[in-house]
Amino acid sequence: MNHDCPFCSPLIEDHVFMETTEMLAVYNISPILPGHSMVIPRRHVESVNDLSENELDQLFRFARIVTKQLITFFKAEGFDWSLQESEAAGQSISHVHLHIIPRKAGDLEQPGDWHSRLQESKKELIDNPLRRKLSKKEISEIVSSLKTFIA
Amino acid sequence: MNHDCPFCSPLIEDHVFMETTEMLAVYNISPILPGHSMVIPRRHVESVNDLSENELDQLFRFARIVTKQLITFFKAEGFDWSLQESEAAGQSISHVHLHIIPRKAGDLEQPGDWHSRLQESKKELIDNPLRRKLSKKEISEIVSSLKTFIA
Repeated sequence: MNHDCPFCSPLIEDHVFMETTEMLAVYNISPILPGHSMVIPRRHVESVNDLSENELDQLFRFARIVTKQLITFFKAEGFDWSLQESEAAGQSISHVHLHIIPRKAGDLEQPGDWHSRLQESKKELIDNPLRRKLSKKEISEIVSSLKTFIA
Repeated sequence: MNHDCPFCSPLIEDHVFMETTEMLAVYNISPILPGHSMVIPRRHVESVNDLSENELDQLFRFARIVTKQLITFFKAEGFDWSLQESEAAGQSISHVHLHIIPRKAGDLEQPGDWHSRLQESKKELIDNPLRRKLSKKEISEIVSSLKTFIA
């Protein structure tokens, strides 16, 4: 738990659409594409190296399950997984997070565009000058549809 | 084993600098940045969903170990992990592979540039019109230095 970390804030709960005892699946407040979500450990862990072996396993097992659900729900054809570590790599929030981006053919002008877009914001959960931020109502609607779909 | 898959070709052996019974760490023939490598399962698996749970665990456990070695060897500060699934997501070779890209501050004009560069090539191991391909000698030198460093 880190009081300055948006992923440790109680506000994150409104974004959670799937969870396990150790992991959360969180809808991105400024999705690059429909379905753009993140899997994060509940525990405030700054580096992949600080995850226990079990947490590392759980993160990707859970990510695989979450990805399947997102692909079905958003009728996507594939996905991107991306994890950045350190500011040099473009990591914006110092709490391990794996981006999951469902993909469809032709959804971006260049298939790799999403990554540059990801970098446009430094504080993606709390403030986002360049990508449109979903309203509380929009987040609530999408999270609740996802929960209903998955249940 | 798939005869059309460059990751299943015996030629891949020249690129391998670390291995386990199930996984290989392979140096990219057209690295976007120094150290750009991939972790791949030995078995020809096209989708993350076709990996056994154990293989999924092994992939990321091994990736974490490989990443630490690459960061030390290339004196990097962080890393990007990226996995694309399906052509819609920009996957170029239909054999599961996780890109590992060691990062340093200011190594690319935009921190996200590597991803677009990754997309420039469709057959990154065998042919690469836009990113410079390392010579056999260069690959051999770097792979052998990495092996010596890791041993």
